[in-house]
Amino acid sequence: MSKHADLVIEDLSLVRKHSPLVHNITNYVVMNNTANALLAVGASPIMAHALEEVEDMISISGSLVINIGTLSKTWIEAMEKAIKKASTLEKPIIIDPVGAGASSFRNESIKKLLSAAAPNIIRGNASEILATLSTSNKTKGVDSTESSDSAVATGKKLSESTEGTVVISGATDYILDQKQIYQVKNGHPMMTKVTGLGCTATALIGAFAAVQKDYTRAAFSAMVVMGIAGEVASQKSPGPGSFQLHFLDALYSLNDNDIKSLIKSES
Amino acid sequence: MSKHADLVIEDLSLVRKHSPLVHNITNYVVMNNTANALLAVGASPIMAHALEEVEDMISISGSLVINIGTLSKTWIEAMEKAIKKASTLEKPIIIDPVGAGASSFRNESIKKLLSAAAPNIIRGNASEILATLSTSNKTKGVDSTESSDSAVATGKKLSESTEGTVVISGATDYILDQKQIYQVKNGHPMMTKVTGLGCTATALIGAFAAVQKDYTRAAFSAMVVMGIAGEVASQKSPGPGSFQLHFLDALYSLNDNDIKSLIKSES
Amino acid sequence: MSKHADLVIEDLSLVRKHSPLVHNITNYVVMNNTANALLAVGASPIMAHALEEVEDMISISGSLVINIGTLSKTWIEAMEKAIKKASTLEKPIIIDPVGAGASSFRNESIKKLLSAAAPNIIRGNASEILATLSTSNKTKGVDSTESSDSAVATGKKLSESTEGTVVISGATDYILDQKQIYQVKNGHPMMTKVTGLGCTATALIGAFAAVQKDYTRAAFSAMVVMGIAGEVASQKSPGPGSFQLHFLDALYSLNDNDIKSLIKSES
Repeated sequence: MSKHADLVIEDLSLVRKHSPLVHNITNYVVMNNTANALLAVGASPIMAHALEEVEDMISISGSLVINIGTLSKTWIEAMEKAIKKASTLEKPIIIDPVGAGASSFRNESIKKLLSAAAPNIIRGNASEILATLSTSNKTKGVDSTESSDSAVATGKKLSESTEGTVVISGATDYILDQKQIYQVKNGHPMMTKVTGLGCTATALIGAFAAVQKDYTRAAFSAMVVMGIAGEVASQKSPGPGSFQLHFLDALYSLNDNDIKSLIKSES
Repeated sequence: MSKHADLVIEDLSLVRKHSPLVHNITNYVVMNNTANALLAVGASPIMAHALEEVEDMISISGSLVINIGTLSKTWIEAMEKAIKKASTLEKPIIIDPVGAGASSFRNESIKKLLSAAAPNIIRGNASEILATLSTSNKTKGVDSTESSDSAVATGKKLSESTEGTVVISGATDYILDQKQIYQVKNGHPMMTKVTGLGCTATALIGAFAAVQKDYTRAAFSAMVVMGIAGEVASQKSPGPGSFQLHFLDALYSLNDNDIKSLIKSES
Repeated sequence: MSKHADLVIEDLSLVRKHSPLVHNITNYVVMNNTANALLAVGASPIMAHALEEVEDMISISGSLVINIGTLSKTWIEAMEKAIKKASTLEKPIIIDPVGAGASSFRNESIKKLLSAAAPNIIRGNASEILATLSTSNKTKGVDSTESSDSAVATGKKLSESTEGTVVISGATDYILDQKQIYQVKNGHPMMTKVTGLGCTATALIGAFAAVQKDYTRAAFSAMVVMGIAGEVASQKSPGPGSFQLHFLDALYSLNDNDIKSLIKSES
């Protein structure tokens, strides 16, 4: 869709022009990949988690990306501190509730993070979004047996609770807030065979939110760029090893024509 | 050898069919690689180390892989807790005593882990297996000047002590318990120029042990798959950088014919 | 320059011949990359940070590489302990003050590390070297508005303070001590689009310093090898993803002719 392509093209050019600093407190497994994805797309990563310095780091950054993949008690404390500071400074806060629902410690940690300040954007798969909604102070009794059709309904409820944007990743990505909803159908099944591509999507959203104040649009643009880069990479890759390098190359060299010709979105 | 190939083919198809969750508490250096290797071979990695959630994580997983590469006091505590829970739940426990013998802290940590519950499988190189045997409660006074020929003898003693499977990696891999012994001669020297391939072997063993209750056979199948993927990758790789991507691609696309035509094993 | 090429060729052959153990206490983001770069160039990495074992590890290693990229209080303690032990044992100490100046915690940590024992080599970009000089006990009131021309002047002051070698990375690298100065003009702009290549340079310096007692020459040789491998890789790489694998391949296969024909250095 041509109007959508124009939004993405404009936002990507903003990222490349301003090269925003993105402060990540993320998991050990993906740190290298997300830092490289941010560099490839044109942003600048800061990876820092020490309680003593997270406030300094968010102060010089354009956005804060929190990812709980390999969480621990001390890291959650640093995340809370960074979120509070980002909120005070009105920098966009993006949360990736990796593995929400898999342990009660994880659920309690998400609850703490959401209480520190409402995130501007939350990104997860359908089950993580559902589990995150369950931990929300404002919502109780979500039925985990809801059909997958209701992913959007769940996302909307979470968006109500946080008053922010929610991104539900899957074969179709849904990016929504209380007023608008985008669908992105880009991507490739091989992307599920590489660790941390969801985390990478969240990091890219951080880059776009640092330069585009309509956060739902920013998240939409990031998910389109992610999906198209994934498709381009998949076409060159016999397996998930070669996919990883072609994906970074694609993020680096993606141009306006790629976006115009490959975007598959609705709103 | 045709019978051996059939075992490996069956076990690999079980991994791909069931896509077992493998809970890893492993080192920072290789987390990304081992997660990707597990995904490429068809399994699903969980990387989680927090004391507060390791019991929840092993409860939903098919096996537990413990790797002490970048150990610290708090991580060892979490490893002990996870091992005890896995033992209670009768999930296979696989230990990789990285760097055993290099520091007394490392040796003491291994002793603690072996005391938490006997591991079903231990994998290391000859010197790590020897050092691990030395830390064992039941064995004293192993001579570190033993010739390399006696790697198998050392492995057998360790297997006696743990009543489990021992894998000794090298140009020839030995996979043994008190009743059986396999040799695998697959692999390529370039594999020693990539960090963490031993750790990857251990993680793959975790995937196979989650679906094959004969743990010695499971470890054998994993080491064959590892070695063949390494050979396939080496043939395409001018150096260790390109090796890494071709290795993941090979794990992903390995088929029955590859296994039949390339397996080099004895028992 | 032919004489320079001869120095680098000799030092690289020493690394490959002796395969020195390099003890790294480094950041989570780059651990995998720096370990692989050390293996590719012919050295052997040890990655270990536990307070309880850093003394054992430096005792068996040829050099100590300290990188504060993802620092925390407990890691700084371990770094101090390792530095003191390395100093006692007269093993070369190499420090990479990643992000110096970005937070007061980072600056205080650098001050602690420099106080533990004077490092033999410090490597950073111009702003990190300037910020490191500012934290030095012996120097006060450095003007951060100094022109980039004065990077060398700053480096010389820091070298005076530590009585060691200082490496200032950039389009031109400066490697200097109080008596000599080398310039290296190898490298490629794509190297700024990959995370952790500065950290990799520091790790390679660790490998060369373990085998070449003239530490300024060792650092010079490492920076030439780094830059040439980067140029070779860039020529084959459409983007930063493929760059990473070609870079490791280039480190692995770099030969005397590559060095003779590609070196761009002055002194």
